[in-house]
Amino acid sequence: MEKSEAVDVVVFGATGDLAARKLIPSLYQLYRTGHLPEGSRVLGAARSKLDDAGFHKFMESDARQHVKDADFEKKSWDAFKAMVCYEPVDLMAQASYDGMAERLNTEPDRVRLYYLSVGPSLFSATCDGLAAAKLLNSRSRIAVEKPLGRDLVSAQAINDKLGSLFKEEQIYRIDHYLGKETVQNLLALRFGNSLFEPLWRSGHIRDVQITVAETLGIGTRGEFYDRTGAMRDMVQNHLLQLLCIIAMECPTGLEPDAMRDEKRKVLRALRPITGADIGKNTVRGQYRAGAIAGEAVGSYLDEGGVAEDSHTETFVSICAHIDTWRWSGVPFYLRTGKRMQEKLTQIVVNFDPLPHNIFTDSVNSTIPNKLVIQLQPEESISLKMMAKMPGGRMKLEPVELALNPERGARRRHMEAYERVFMDAINGNQTLFLRRDEVDAAWAWVDPILAGWEDSQDEPRTYVAGTWGPARSSSLLVQDGFVWNEES
Amino acid sequence: MEKSEAVDVVVFGATGDLAARKLIPSLYQLYRTGHLPEGSRVLGAARSKLDDAGFHKFMESDARQHVKDADFEKKSWDAFKAMVCYEPVDLMAQASYDGMAERLNTEPDRVRLYYLSVGPSLFSATCDGLAAAKLLNSRSRIAVEKPLGRDLVSAQAINDKLGSLFKEEQIYRIDHYLGKETVQNLLALRFGNSLFEPLWRSGHIRDVQITVAETLGIGTRGEFYDRTGAMRDMVQNHLLQLLCIIAMECPTGLEPDAMRDEKRKVLRALRPITGADIGKNTVRGQYRAGAIAGEAVGSYLDEGGVAEDSHTETFVSICAHIDTWRWSGVPFYLRTGKRMQEKLTQIVVNFDPLPHNIFTDSVNSTIPNKLVIQLQPEESISLKMMAKMPGGRMKLEPVELALNPERGARRRHMEAYERVFMDAINGNQTLFLRRDEVDAAWAWVDPILAGWEDSQDEPRTYVAGTWGPARSSSLLVQDGFVWNEES
Repeated sequence: MEKSEAVDVVVFGATGDLAARKLIPSLYQLYRTGHLPEGSRVLGAARSKLDDAGFHKFMESDARQHVKDADFEKKSWDAFKAMVCYEPVDLMAQASYDGMAERLNTEPDRVRLYYLSVGPSLFSATCDGLAAAKLLNSRSRIAVEKPLGRDLVSAQAINDKLGSLFKEEQIYRIDHYLGKETVQNLLALRFGNSLFEPLWRSGHIRDVQITVAETLGIGTRGEFYDRTGAMRDMVQNHLLQLLCIIAMECPTGLEPDAMRDEKRKVLRALRPITGADIGKNTVRGQYRAGAIAGEAVGSYLDEGGVAEDSHTETFVSICAHIDTWRWSGVPFYLRTGKRMQEKLTQIVVNFDPLPHNIFTDSVNSTIPNKLVIQLQPEESISLKMMAKMPGGRMKLEPVELALNPERGARRRHMEAYERVFMDAINGNQTLFLRRDEVDAAWAWVDPILAGWEDSQDEPRTYVAGTWGPARSSSLLVQDGFVWNEES
Repeated sequence: MEKSEAVDVVVFGATGDLAARKLIPSLYQLYRTGHLPEGSRVLGAARSKLDDAGFHKFMESDARQHVKDADFEKKSWDAFKAMVCYEPVDLMAQASYDGMAERLNTEPDRVRLYYLSVGPSLFSATCDGLAAAKLLNSRSRIAVEKPLGRDLVSAQAINDKLGSLFKEEQIYRIDHYLGKETVQNLLALRFGNSLFEPLWRSGHIRDVQITVAETLGIGTRGEFYDRTGAMRDMVQNHLLQLLCIIAMECPTGLEPDAMRDEKRKVLRALRPITGADIGKNTVRGQYRAGAIAGEAVGSYLDEGGVAEDSHTETFVSICAHIDTWRWSGVPFYLRTGKRMQEKLTQIVVNFDPLPHNIFTDSVNSTIPNKLVIQLQPEESISLKMMAKMPGGRMKLEPVELALNPERGARRRHMEAYERVFMDAINGNQTLFLRRDEVDAAWAWVDPILAGWEDSQDEPRTYVAGTWGPARSSSLLVQDGFVWNEES
């Protein structure tokens, strides 16, 4: 595709929360920065009975507030709005697709991206509807968000359906964490420098900790969440993808399959957690009433849409191992939860302690080096090292080095969803998941979910506004480690 | 010695340039910061016929201006001045020492440091004079500055003399480069972090470059310099000591002998440069008229005190090798000169390039990592790495990380000579040279000096204000490298 060639982007679920917060603002940014060519069309589709003007109102009232003032330019916003139209649809009714076809097929040869911001139960009907309305051809692309199924079997069913209508290279399975600047900078750090790679392994790294903590509860998604839980909602996708980026071998190149082959290798090398190991290496929790930042919040069981005897986990921590030469003996601790003490997405790589300390003058001299990659609340990469403090004694103290490009401050960072749209429009699948990755992730997660279901134990409770059940700490303590507590 | 115990410091050469610029200001700083105990005495000794008041005047007019305004406190300066007295001496006349003895031996049991800021030809007479006046006992210490001899034989004679009157642990052979904060921070970096040590060797480091460049000429020291040259003045001591700090194995501790054993090991492992290798691996140069920072400067041969057919080198560069497992195949390039383009003392550790580059989008992606340790004009340590620039493409650009303790900005750095005095007063020899180190350095330097002397070649000329003779560049080019040009 030529860069200047106009494209069509069809957003299903266009009046939803994600569309307002991320999708519409990201498409606007892409247009403003020249990544969405002039003449392109954005077609919003959802159940609401709106006309184009009605959808423009939704954009103005809901999406507009999610564009930072610094990035807002009235002229380009208006020009972008003029590219956007709307189609009310019933995704179960073929007539809806035929209506869209009439509108879209005035430009039948365009690259066209169908973005499914709808529940996975509608994926199949939507694909069939598009196909029956002759809206699919070799230039069509489909983008789908997690959750892709609720276990290996259901994921395979979805992927079979997608595969029956699209070739693998037309399918964009999104994990927007991969779209974050810092995750890509981590790739640059690892493979663009000769300094880290020799140390990036067993014998130099002691443990890795991946935390995705939210202070939010489940909002209005109670019914969905209670069927899903933290393992399916977060671990199977985001946390395992971050683990892959940390753990993978250097790919031969940045081509999609080279990258995805390496991620799949990691996922397949994850040591299965089954039987008695489930109790030993995993912790599930569910929050009770507590307080966050001084404000009282209720118990999970009192949230709307949640069964009163729900066993759904709102917190997971896992001690994972990767059975390769590189990672033998290095624990990867994963942790995610709702209603945690802080909003924090962070990867901590703890290096080995000094084998022998000659700086006996220093109280702190045994603090091992660590690399902290933070995605939320702010994106940053920093290296914690020891340096001599100025003065007469040979006294070491920890210092923190920011590994973020200085010049970055002056350049605008691309939002993860901008990156997702841009790559999908340009046909670059590097930061999207291949089917076998999704399968491998489910294959590892399934036995743990099954073990929990079979178990007589309930999830451990934790007070909202804490770091989860105490057992999550003892998971590390049993190996001699502690969760990193600095952000 | 208790920290609060008063000491005597006797400075020979007290009206000299070094005393005014460094020694007196450093002693003042030590007093001000509590490192020179109350009740201590500083006795200045030199040829000038001054009384105490006359020397105080010299302090006020010459030394005072070398104390930074921020560090000047009238009250402590006056109190310090009151501790300082002066004795006019003829170092060849025993009466001078007897006069000093009368003054000093009112406190016979004090730790007493004799600081010889005089030419090495006076070392022997001074030691004998002190001994004959019964000014030496087990609490006496002697500090001597480079040059310690002009070759192995003459250095041995000096060390034999020192050794006949002092035990090795009473002798403080100064290399003030070791007193610099940044040199000590380099030790902290290497041995206080698990990150660098595994990479600090052949297979990860490609080459090391040590530059000590001055824009100054030889000033009023023409006669001395013309007998000495850059090899004896700079390479034998400062450059080889910096090389030792970079190259040494981790000592078992920071005790003086543990450190000095490791430095000696490096010096003894330096591959001898003899015969035809002298022409291949060394370059000597002599400056001709040129310009520095837009100002015309004259030729070395026109300087006062310089023989008109002088072959003395004002510039040296050397490709050195250290024959150990750690450094096999890693060249250490040394370079020093007068009248260079910039004042720059810098160690550059060049890491290996990437074995395979996957970031083919980036023009710059092949710039290898390097660690730059700068001692002059400013002290700093920085790491040059590659990071992803924010934006849509996977484009890497070099970034520079400052490895200096952030909090350091708020703490005063100790001047190298403060550190020298403090350690000598406290009896800590870690940052001073042991006799066998000096011997080993001369043993490596001597054959090169002899080879130059025997050779029919004159030193290569270079224009003042440049980086030395072109041959200095080709020394690296023949190995596929270039001198680092960023400061």
